Amino acid sequence: MSQFFTHHRRVEFAETDAAGIAHFSAFFLYMEQTEHAMWRHLGLSVFPMLTSVGEVSWPRVAASCQYRGPVRFEQTLEIHLQIARLGDKSITFQYEMFVNANKVADGETTTVCCRMSEGHKIESVRIPDEVRAKLTPYVRA
Amino acid sequence: MSQFFTHHRRVEFAETDAAGIAHFSAFFLYMEQTEHAMWRHLGLSVFPMLTSVGEVSWPRVAASCQYRGPVRFEQTLEIHLQIARLGDKSITFQYEMFVNANKVADGETTTVCCRMSEGHKIESVRIPDEVRAKLTPYVRA
Amino acid sequence: MSQFFTHHRRVEFAETDAAGIAHFSAFFLYMEQTEHAMWRHLGLSVFPMLTSVGEVSWPRVAASCQYRGPVRFEQTLEIHLQIARLGDKSITFQYEMFVNANKVADGETTTVCCRMSEGHKIESVRIPDEVRAKLTPYVRA
Amino acid sequence: MSQFFTHHRRVEFAETDAAGIAHFSAFFLYMEQTEHAMWRHLGLSVFPMLTSVGEVSWPRVAASCQYRGPVRFEQTLEIHLQIARLGDKSITFQYEMFVNANKVADGETTTVCCRMSEGHKIESVRIPDEVRAKLTPYVRA
Repeated sequence: MSQFFTHHRRVEFAETDAAGIAHFSAFFLYMEQTEHAMWRHLGLSVFPMLTSVGEVSWPRVAASCQYRGPVRFEQTLEIHLQIARLGDKSITFQYEMFVNANKVADGETTTVCCRMSEGHKIESVRIPDEVRAKLTPYVRA
Repeated sequence: MSQFFTHHRRVEFAETDAAGIAHFSAFFLYMEQTEHAMWRHLGLSVFPMLTSVGEVSWPRVAASCQYRGPVRFEQTLEIHLQIARLGDKSITFQYEMFVNANKVADGETTTVCCRMSEGHKIESVRIPDEVRAKLTPYVRA
Repeated sequence: MSQFFTHHRRVEFAETDAAGIAHFSAFFLYMEQTEHAMWRHLGLSVFPMLTSVGEVSWPRVAASCQYRGPVRFEQTLEIHLQIARLGDKSITFQYEMFVNANKVADGETTTVCCRMSEGHKIESVRIPDEVRAKLTPYVRA
Repeated sequence: MSQFFTHHRRVEFAETDAAGIAHFSAFFLYMEQTEHAMWRHLGLSVFPMLTSVGEVSWPRVAASCQYRGPVRFEQTLEIHLQIARLGDKSITFQYEMFVNANKVADGETTTVCCRMSEGHKIESVRIPDEVRAKLTPYVRA
């Protein structure tokens, strides 16, 4: 059975706009910070990530968000993160965002595992086994 | 035959991240600023917009971006905006982003026409005719 | 004897720049979020703030920061907030920012107590007594 | 006689906050983007800057802003940049910001010329002569 990772994030004043609500671009920060909190929870740092196949990074290839309702200054988002797809070389994270148990947004980000080695072009590589093992419990059933 | 609206936008230093490239969330600012430049080009301001049916605003219900390649400090994006769908009450904007004629990203945002009237809840309304007329040339053929 | 308010804030990836460190503008967010955390700790919200003299807000009239050293992704800032000056109508907040007990920045922000009343221009007013009472313990000795 | 460098910058929607005005932290972006536009005008890029003494960068050691009045979405700032002090190793930039000829803010940033060389710690160095020559006309009389 799959589990999800939960992160709480308060809406800060600088993230609101003149319409009185969190700007739509802020939700991508909320998603990224949830993902990074999950990596830390798993004992890993996302940038750079030292693995059995060398130093890898995770450039994004896609991001999306659907907005269900407005979010205001000082409200706290509860964000649930699962993995919608754990591919050979890529991960699609899926986020559900709630305020007081009401869904306010759904989102997704897709990142690709890339190896950085001095003097070589960045190249996509298979997700290292020990990283895959840590992510597997979060794959949506 | 449909046309597109073109906007140029330089990548600013604060928009880069420790990976040395524009942060993925910055592309949503590039898209929004292109949309707002188009409204101004059409003689309208997006917030608030005074129309024949009163004051309207355009909350977003969806936003997405696919990243094709990295973008760096001081590069200039050329952004092409078309309308993928002009509905009764909503608009889906479509963006193609280029650096030196190479596609670096594709994006979409969907907004809904909403009327704000004092003492009433915000409600979605039909896009005012004079606004629709100005947008029609940008609808993708 | 004066006390200070302590806030912890992790450096997020979007706040770093291509130099590999937190962008200088991010420190103003760190300061503001520390101030807002203090208001919440005192049982008040900064926007809007309901007081015995009506609804007030706190526009800024000055902000400054001196940078002592670089701060990197995932480091946690410990921020100490005191009040350098509690005037009739204004407050000067003073911030000391540390990473692992090393000072990384000093900052200040000055805000003015303003009353917002429908149909009237915003005007500066005396800080309400009950607000002043809550702030007084944080005034630097 | 000294001259100033002029930059125009529109206030974008994402830079406004729930108080309906540009957030105070945005002015530090306006200042930095004016400085970077001046470097480009002088035929230089700020990051990294290739000079006669090698590759240099310009970390900030101080930044400040005084706010004279609110600035709103789609207003255009006219920003005047001069150099308040051109030291051996540091530059203090001074900014005056106007909307419709009304002063809305004054600011300052101080940066130090630093050399980056592989395998060595970053160190402050004298501003290269050819850079100093280009900046001298902007030193305030």
